[in-house]
Amino acid sequence: MTDATDADNNAHNTNAAARFTAAGNEMSASFLAAKKRSDETTARLEAHPEEFTMLTGDRPTGRLHLGHLFGSIRSRVEMQDKGVRTNIIIADYQVITDRDTTDHIGENVLNMVLDYMAAGIDPEKTMIFTHSAVPAENQLMLPFLSLVTEAELERNPTVKSEKEASGHALTGLLLTYPVHQACDILFCKANVVPAGKDQLPHIEMTRTIARRFNERYAHKHPVFPEPAAILSDTPEIPGLDGRKMSKSYGNSIMLGATAKETEKLIKKSPTDSERRITFDPVNRPQVSALLTTAGLVTGRDPVEIADEIGDAGAGALKQYVITSVNEFLAPHRERREELAKDMDSIRDVIHDGNKRANAIANETLDEVREAMGMLY
Amino acid sequence: MTDATDADNNAHNTNAAARFTAAGNEMSASFLAAKKRSDETTARLEAHPEEFTMLTGDRPTGRLHLGHLFGSIRSRVEMQDKGVRTNIIIADYQVITDRDTTDHIGENVLNMVLDYMAAGIDPEKTMIFTHSAVPAENQLMLPFLSLVTEAELERNPTVKSEKEASGHALTGLLLTYPVHQACDILFCKANVVPAGKDQLPHIEMTRTIARRFNERYAHKHPVFPEPAAILSDTPEIPGLDGRKMSKSYGNSIMLGATAKETEKLIKKSPTDSERRITFDPVNRPQVSALLTTAGLVTGRDPVEIADEIGDAGAGALKQYVITSVNEFLAPHRERREELAKDMDSIRDVIHDGNKRANAIANETLDEVREAMGMLY
Repeated sequence: MTDATDADNNAHNTNAAARFTAAGNEMSASFLAAKKRSDETTARLEAHPEEFTMLTGDRPTGRLHLGHLFGSIRSRVEMQDKGVRTNIIIADYQVITDRDTTDHIGENVLNMVLDYMAAGIDPEKTMIFTHSAVPAENQLMLPFLSLVTEAELERNPTVKSEKEASGHALTGLLLTYPVHQACDILFCKANVVPAGKDQLPHIEMTRTIARRFNERYAHKHPVFPEPAAILSDTPEIPGLDGRKMSKSYGNSIMLGATAKETEKLIKKSPTDSERRITFDPVNRPQVSALLTTAGLVTGRDPVEIADEIGDAGAGALKQYVITSVNEFLAPHRERREELAKDMDSIRDVIHDGNKRANAIANETLDEVREAMGMLY
Repeated sequence: MTDATDADNNAHNTNAAARFTAAGNEMSASFLAAKKRSDETTARLEAHPEEFTMLTGDRPTGRLHLGHLFGSIRSRVEMQDKGVRTNIIIADYQVITDRDTTDHIGENVLNMVLDYMAAGIDPEKTMIFTHSAVPAENQLMLPFLSLVTEAELERNPTVKSEKEASGHALTGLLLTYPVHQACDILFCKANVVPAGKDQLPHIEMTRTIARRFNERYAHKHPVFPEPAAILSDTPEIPGLDGRKMSKSYGNSIMLGATAKETEKLIKKSPTDSERRITFDPVNRPQVSALLTTAGLVTGRDPVEIADEIGDAGAGALKQYVITSVNEFLAPHRERREELAKDMDSIRDVIHDGNKRANAIANETLDEVREAMGMLY
């Protein structure tokens, strides 16, 4: 089952996004509300970062790539440095929502932490922890599951599209996936969650669960905040071949790959038969993906790069991408290599994060038990 | 929401049993297999009680009644005294599978422990614990949910009949109810579970989860046993009015009621217009329920009691039931009252049970994490 270690953390989000858009006007209204809340939260966060607790995370199904760095990790570092209480969950149980093996999960987790830290995540400021290590967080599943109906679970666009796309029966873990996410977010009382448009329905369910819990059991002293999504404004970064970045397509630049491996990968990426290089994402997705990548890592406009290369053709373009990507990633890779010399301290980062997460989760669970009258 | 404190632990089992029977031949085959396994397990348990760990429990939705005593508690005491490792879960999270309040749950839990102990459960031998106090047990929900499909959850007869009967949408917690039961049973590696016929599908799902976990993650060193159900041979005990015992019908004799309250309850129980007392459950359910109750607590044949009372009529029958029930329950109530003088020690019983359950659950969860490669 080699597919089980693919590094495509966003694989099911493509379909979900489609569904989300297809859902039409009703969703649009809720999208506009979420967008407004996102803008207000962003403004408030700029002014008072200390009022915010952020939760985000990744599935350790593979290694992190350039898409992760630009799509999420950099904004996490920014929030961390701004003074927001930042929390990163390594969502190891989410690996088995749609896979029946956990092969290589240990390596994936450790490599994830290496990349986080190489990218500037400071474990003194950011709590990095693994989902499976925090029982009290997971226990929240039970009271939270009582607050939602089967119909609500099935209506979730990600669950729905997975059900249609996966080709095999939906597992109970995938069906209840939005509820785990609510546990992830609410155990540490996060009030802000960075999210793509396709993840908004999950955040909405988390808000619903928080509201219902407070109404039902804690109306005098609410236990949970209703978290706001901060919508990412990073445009989607295509894979080298113009398709969605996915390890199964072999089209992603891994942060932890060597310069040599990166060179090889870029060299064999497909282009088209037209010699002159132009930036035209619709008609020339492959060449444009290479230009987008180069633009991203150099901070330049892809059109300008295209003009510069002009008739020198795909070979010159690839050389430019190779050089600029490897130059851009060199400091990251250097820090990564340095960190990897002491894997025990990487393990310590996880152990320390898990310890802190457990302390927080135990405290929250005690509040939940008290609100529900379950302290005997 | 007074309904939420009703003491009808078997309420949804009636429908479930009906569905189970209606399901026909396929179920019959699996019933026969379960019956055979039950008989073999019972024989083995007589010879080697030390090889067995038993898990059973109750929902703290109200007080325990005579039906609980004869239907389950007495056989738990027998197993305990035989040397089986006996475990009783007070399933407090199951209260909210179909209710939206936990009112009075604290009192219900404490009263439950009083009745267990008054009935002969020895907390030195039997581990009594509350579901909500054991996070590592609850965490098993996540890996276990990945081992079943939504379709399998929906096929469960109890879930199915609840969905049809409850009149409101099925909660996520009720939908996943057979999976919590699997966690309850497997966290302490119970290999035997007393069960009514209607609960067999739950035990079957527990067996499936244990088998799939072992096959997928632990084929060399299985983590979980596949528990056998021991089918109860106690016939169903009717309420005083001949209907199913249920607090909402006010037809159950509470173990903790006073002699006076019991007298009142029996006096106002309905009978019929025929003076002569005969035992005829089909045509005279109310009179026969009184006779069954008297037979149960005196160990006599209801027919014999009926003959003895004969033309003396319902008044004499009720007097006989009052006297015999109160006589039978007097020692239980005396022990109960004695125990209730020191509620702190009752709380200590729960705390001690929870501590032991946590130690066992943590150990099992560690094995699960190791099998899944989730020790980082």
